[in-house]
Amino acid sequence: MTDADEFAEQIRAGDVRLHELEDHADHDTATAARRILLESETDATLDAVGDYAFDAERAENNVENMVGGAQIPMGVAGPVNVSGGSAEGDYYLPLATTEGALVASVNRGCSVITSAGGADARVTKTGMTRAPVFRVQGVAEAEEVVNWVADNRDRLADAAESTTSHGELLDVTPYVVGASVFLRFVYDTKDAMGMNMATIATREAASLVEEETPASLVALSGNLCTDKKPAAINAVEGRGRSVTADIRISRETVEERLHTTPKAIEEANIRKNLVGSAKAGSLGFNAHAANVVAAAFLATGQDAAQVVEGSNAITTVEARENELYASVSLASLEVGTVGGGTKLPTQSEALDVLGLRGGGDPAGSNADALAEIIAVGALAGELSLLAALASRHLSSAHEELGR
Amino acid sequence: MTDADEFAEQIRAGDVRLHELEDHADHDTATAARRILLESETDATLDAVGDYAFDAERAENNVENMVGGAQIPMGVAGPVNVSGGSAEGDYYLPLATTEGALVASVNRGCSVITSAGGADARVTKTGMTRAPVFRVQGVAEAEEVVNWVADNRDRLADAAESTTSHGELLDVTPYVVGASVFLRFVYDTKDAMGMNMATIATREAASLVEEETPASLVALSGNLCTDKKPAAINAVEGRGRSVTADIRISRETVEERLHTTPKAIEEANIRKNLVGSAKAGSLGFNAHAANVVAAAFLATGQDAAQVVEGSNAITTVEARENELYASVSLASLEVGTVGGGTKLPTQSEALDVLGLRGGGDPAGSNADALAEIIAVGALAGELSLLAALASRHLSSAHEELGR
Amino acid sequence: MTDADEFAEQIRAGDVRLHELEDHADHDTATAARRILLESETDATLDAVGDYAFDAERAENNVENMVGGAQIPMGVAGPVNVSGGSAEGDYYLPLATTEGALVASVNRGCSVITSAGGADARVTKTGMTRAPVFRVQGVAEAEEVVNWVADNRDRLADAAESTTSHGELLDVTPYVVGASVFLRFVYDTKDAMGMNMATIATREAASLVEEETPASLVALSGNLCTDKKPAAINAVEGRGRSVTADIRISRETVEERLHTTPKAIEEANIRKNLVGSAKAGSLGFNAHAANVVAAAFLATGQDAAQVVEGSNAITTVEARENELYASVSLASLEVGTVGGGTKLPTQSEALDVLGLRGGGDPAGSNADALAEIIAVGALAGELSLLAALASRHLSSAHEELGR
Amino acid sequence: MTDADEFAEQIRAGDVRLHELEDHADHDTATAARRILLESETDATLDAVGDYAFDAERAENNVENMVGGAQIPMGVAGPVNVSGGSAEGDYYLPLATTEGALVASVNRGCSVITSAGGADARVTKTGMTRAPVFRVQGVAEAEEVVNWVADNRDRLADAAESTTSHGELLDVTPYVVGASVFLRFVYDTKDAMGMNMATIATREAASLVEEETPASLVALSGNLCTDKKPAAINAVEGRGRSVTADIRISRETVEERLHTTPKAIEEANIRKNLVGSAKAGSLGFNAHAANVVAAAFLATGQDAAQVVEGSNAITTVEARENELYASVSLASLEVGTVGGGTKLPTQSEALDVLGLRGGGDPAGSNADALAEIIAVGALAGELSLLAALASRHLSSAHEELGR
Repeated sequence: MTDADEFAEQIRAGDVRLHELEDHADHDTATAARRILLESETDATLDAVGDYAFDAERAENNVENMVGGAQIPMGVAGPVNVSGGSAEGDYYLPLATTEGALVASVNRGCSVITSAGGADARVTKTGMTRAPVFRVQGVAEAEEVVNWVADNRDRLADAAESTTSHGELLDVTPYVVGASVFLRFVYDTKDAMGMNMATIATREAASLVEEETPASLVALSGNLCTDKKPAAINAVEGRGRSVTADIRISRETVEERLHTTPKAIEEANIRKNLVGSAKAGSLGFNAHAANVVAAAFLATGQDAAQVVEGSNAITTVEARENELYASVSLASLEVGTVGGGTKLPTQSEALDVLGLRGGGDPAGSNADALAEIIAVGALAGELSLLAALASRHLSSAHEELGR
Repeated sequence: MTDADEFAEQIRAGDVRLHELEDHADHDTATAARRILLESETDATLDAVGDYAFDAERAENNVENMVGGAQIPMGVAGPVNVSGGSAEGDYYLPLATTEGALVASVNRGCSVITSAGGADARVTKTGMTRAPVFRVQGVAEAEEVVNWVADNRDRLADAAESTTSHGELLDVTPYVVGASVFLRFVYDTKDAMGMNMATIATREAASLVEEETPASLVALSGNLCTDKKPAAINAVEGRGRSVTADIRISRETVEERLHTTPKAIEEANIRKNLVGSAKAGSLGFNAHAANVVAAAFLATGQDAAQVVEGSNAITTVEARENELYASVSLASLEVGTVGGGTKLPTQSEALDVLGLRGGGDPAGSNADALAEIIAVGALAGELSLLAALASRHLSSAHEELGR
Repeated sequence: MTDADEFAEQIRAGDVRLHELEDHADHDTATAARRILLESETDATLDAVGDYAFDAERAENNVENMVGGAQIPMGVAGPVNVSGGSAEGDYYLPLATTEGALVASVNRGCSVITSAGGADARVTKTGMTRAPVFRVQGVAEAEEVVNWVADNRDRLADAAESTTSHGELLDVTPYVVGASVFLRFVYDTKDAMGMNMATIATREAASLVEEETPASLVALSGNLCTDKKPAAINAVEGRGRSVTADIRISRETVEERLHTTPKAIEEANIRKNLVGSAKAGSLGFNAHAANVVAAAFLATGQDAAQVVEGSNAITTVEARENELYASVSLASLEVGTVGGGTKLPTQSEALDVLGLRGGGDPAGSNADALAEIIAVGALAGELSLLAALASRHLSSAHEELGR
Repeated sequence: MTDADEFAEQIRAGDVRLHELEDHADHDTATAARRILLESETDATLDAVGDYAFDAERAENNVENMVGGAQIPMGVAGPVNVSGGSAEGDYYLPLATTEGALVASVNRGCSVITSAGGADARVTKTGMTRAPVFRVQGVAEAEEVVNWVADNRDRLADAAESTTSHGELLDVTPYVVGASVFLRFVYDTKDAMGMNMATIATREAASLVEEETPASLVALSGNLCTDKKPAAINAVEGRGRSVTADIRISRETVEERLHTTPKAIEEANIRKNLVGSAKAGSLGFNAHAANVVAAAFLATGQDAAQVVEGSNAITTVEARENELYASVSLASLEVGTVGGGTKLPTQSEALDVLGLRGGGDPAGSNADALAEIIAVGALAGELSLLAALASRHLSSAHEELGR
């Protein structure tokens, strides 16, 4: 009987609690004990789950009650040429996914982009947000609070920035709804995605608000941040990075490589991504940007739940004279190259493939570059899918003519 | 020099293309060759990425240009007691995540739910959708198409269902916008998430529409489906499973286990999840449902990009007399226990932990149960986070009184 | 001292209450007394307000505490040629507004439409909705209610239709959110806008639900109707009439009459109405449809607050070969030709100008025709404004070339 | 044969065009001629339309192709006590409407508010917006434009403010979507609603942008303003005035005057206005604020189409210990006391009833006060309707107990 077996026994006996195992055993043993317990209480065998390639102890910042690892196939698309504000050159984009055809589709798009001379990309806005909600007696008191905030921006910045060596308070915007006051704090968090930094800094600033005004904090996040919910405030004002990638492709290249015309791609984009999304009451005016965002997030250690706001993207296509113009603008792409899941082995290796592991020089440039490359990946995915729709249509149009 | 080295060389030389390697080598060799290539062209070493525990050849339905696997730590929350339409009993919920504190938070919520007698859960609506967009000359022609569709529901069903042994056409709803007609097809896809099934069936039905009416197909998905975009149509009408989980917890349990009061949790929910989300222009009225959805999706082989619509959730809390009522209603949770990523090793093991691998009996019951358990997991996460907010507030309120 | 003076005195003395005057005096005197009171308590003289041209007594279904009338200038646009499902021929569209340039703009658009051969228009969906919200204990009970509703559609229809000679129940859709069940009832209300009819019928049906299920009615409108709020459910599913108007205009006519090109109008529409609205998180993808809806509503006695959902409109423009295609699709235009404000003198005269006063033959055709004509008016307004933008741009472009 | 008859004849003969009549005749004659024409071409008699009480010539800034006036019944609600930032004291609120029961409902609410000591009200944000859209070559050029704007705020302000004696540029926010750059200009327009002022000022600023950057103006309004469309950007960031009104009412008053309890009103608000609106994908979380906004707008000469964004309102209700707290927060209420329709006779008389005709001292205070009073009116309407729902429910609950 191994140590792990014994611990599993102790859990069953109620002598140790599932989440306390690490107090009594090394991390691998604790993890093994949980697998044994699960196997005995269900019909599962957990061999693959137990065959993880990372250090269980170092993963304790990433997971609790660990039983092992999930393994997601990783592919690569590219190389794709990017001319960005921070990214520059040819990149292979690692993508972790279980959805067949996705990597192939992005890869095709990357190939077309590169053959057209590469995509431009720019981060057009930066800022991680946290928006606490405070209780006041009513709007008269709310006005007091709002005025105090307007008059004390420096003190709020001092409080917030006292908690962080890198973060910088960019803005505080108040919103009043009845007896609730929301303050949306916006930070430059450099190469970190920045949620933790923003939360800790805002806690300090919120304490100051409570001390100096009649406002009483109800929740450090009042859902105007907005984190991990599909919200217009992010689609409009941005969160994390607002980033656009675009490309001009000659008509010849479109015809040869994508087997369709600029005009046909433009039509598919308008009817599907613009008009269709409009009718659906959507905040996402794109074909499948979330696919690329999700796969790149999983590969590079980003927060998978933030795929939600990563899908706030608008794709535009213009059939210009003798060329196609296509762009993807992601309003709220939350990425980092330090912290979170980026330190785990496969994740940091994937960041190394991009040359973006850790902090950039200048600070923030690695996360900017990551945002730009993901945007180009999303653009590749949009191009590829729209072209497939357009060429399918063209071919069926040809068949009709052939009848 | 290994085979993989040689293939890497051939790629560099332009003799073989990156995505064609599997034509020339077995899958593991092809995958290794890509790693060697990436390592030589970047500063990366890809040891962890290469240390995958699944069969590369069988993963070819899940990824292209494979280089290995991403490994995400997996934890487990529970056991949580569920009284569902399909789920019944105590479950351990596997969660794959890189975000520290998430599993612990869900685990705490599960513990409270179980000690309160378990959560109810029900799938209240089912239907996977696909909505092609057709071009017509104008609204007069659109009316023709819409009328034809209304008159030929049986033929459309026959065409759609000819492509599938399991799927069933439930509904077709037309939407007209100018010279575009969208037809939203809704299917019962049983235990499959069903996107592929719905797509293939709809292609057949769309062909019939093209044959019999003046409509011309522009895109098989016209974004009224809506897949992987944050869209009101999903939040309102549902996609995949609409599922609600709820719980009643006595005031004593709330006070003892969550260190706060029903009223305080209710207040946090109203100001943050209802009023805050309202002000944010959100389709998600919850605290962090996407966290649980994402982690459960990664663990069980769901489509990570569908976390987007998985976040269309409303959390309600009522401080009833002597008890707390709390619920989470996920409008568009797209899950399956067959197909997609569910066959991969760690993913199918995770489904085994839930006793839900493969098709259910009756058909659809496994996917229903999975939806119900994820909903209970989301409820656990909401309870835990709201209680933390409320108790923090209470404690600071106590401090104030103590001054 | 007139009777009115005396009554004003009595109000001041507290002997009569403001809203009880009609119990003691004829309606004109009551109205005059209120003006006298207001004049004495404020600096206002109310001569114009008192100079109303309708019968005060007959207005008692339209207003309480009447003091007189508001007068809004009325102009007329047209004639515009309409080829609709119900409307057919040339129409002058009465528009009441205080916004200069509006009627002129619509008039210009009407003129272009007519010279291009007239617009097509179709009502593509009809249904007035009312959606009560019921309280249940939780989702298990919600499921019971939803099942009962599915099994008892005929009884619900009988109950609802027992209250109306014209109305017909088309559909009932349930939505579950935690311990709340919403039932969205949809009615064909013929030539009436139908809110009252739908409300009364739904009250009866809701009583049946309360009798037969554990559900308890909380509000006869649970905001899923949705009445007078900007809501995606209306933009997606429609309310009242969903109506589209469209037009094809030759390139020559565009150039001669609108001084621009199809391509330039298309570009203005895409960047402003599609991309701009997308970025704004909008449910309205048009330039100023609400202007026309509001002015036509005021002229013809519709409910001014329903301009809100009348603005859920999508404008599309295509530069086709040698012609311009333009359309406006209003998802939720709530109009009637009987009831509400339609009986008032100026309003019924305006309906007479359209030949649409009172019930149509067949029933519903007058309201359909009114919806179609307003849609064409909105189309005229869109065309005119977009062309002005496009021609401005062209002319400045010309200037640039001239430099 | 009168002059008007002759002119009607000339129109029919094609000698004069409908909109040119004012070039040949005085305004009353022109207006009469149009009525004669309409009467001869339709079955209408236009006596009431012709019986208008305003000066046709002075209305030429409000309407073209004038045929007369629409008359809408006007009632009055109040007095209601307001303690605002600008409004102070008891007010009668003029309401023009054709919807029976509306004025009575608001009046009941006003009475309760006043008996509870009056409502607080505050304008929490001010700013009229205009957001032109510019074409650029791509995101690289977009970045240039955005940078230029950031570096040249003073020059933009000088350009914009050169066109107005009162307006002040508060802010310019850039938004980039592909090859489109939107600049949202925000102005303080004092007592004017300010759309014209903002448009003219922005045209000048936009010219400067065109001169100094590669950007080319496509439309002076790029729909990020957003005017007269239901858009999240207004609901989140405000337009015109963001204004909140609130009230605390003792439990006794609620029970005596509204025949229900604070708790029951709270429940109706949560299930209907918060949860129901959430499920509907709504930007309006209220019961019927648009009714009050529309009626007050018509009475006081505001732009009727701006009722659309006037409905972006959130109602909150809290059952506090021994009292009810209720609030309405209107995010984007666009009002003025100068310009537009405010100069017309019945409209300026209605403003006189409020003591708010013309410019305020200090500038802007009259429009602020008008916003505050309308907000209190909306609050009265919400209270009244929610209480009716709650008391209906209570009474049926009582009946149940009685059984």
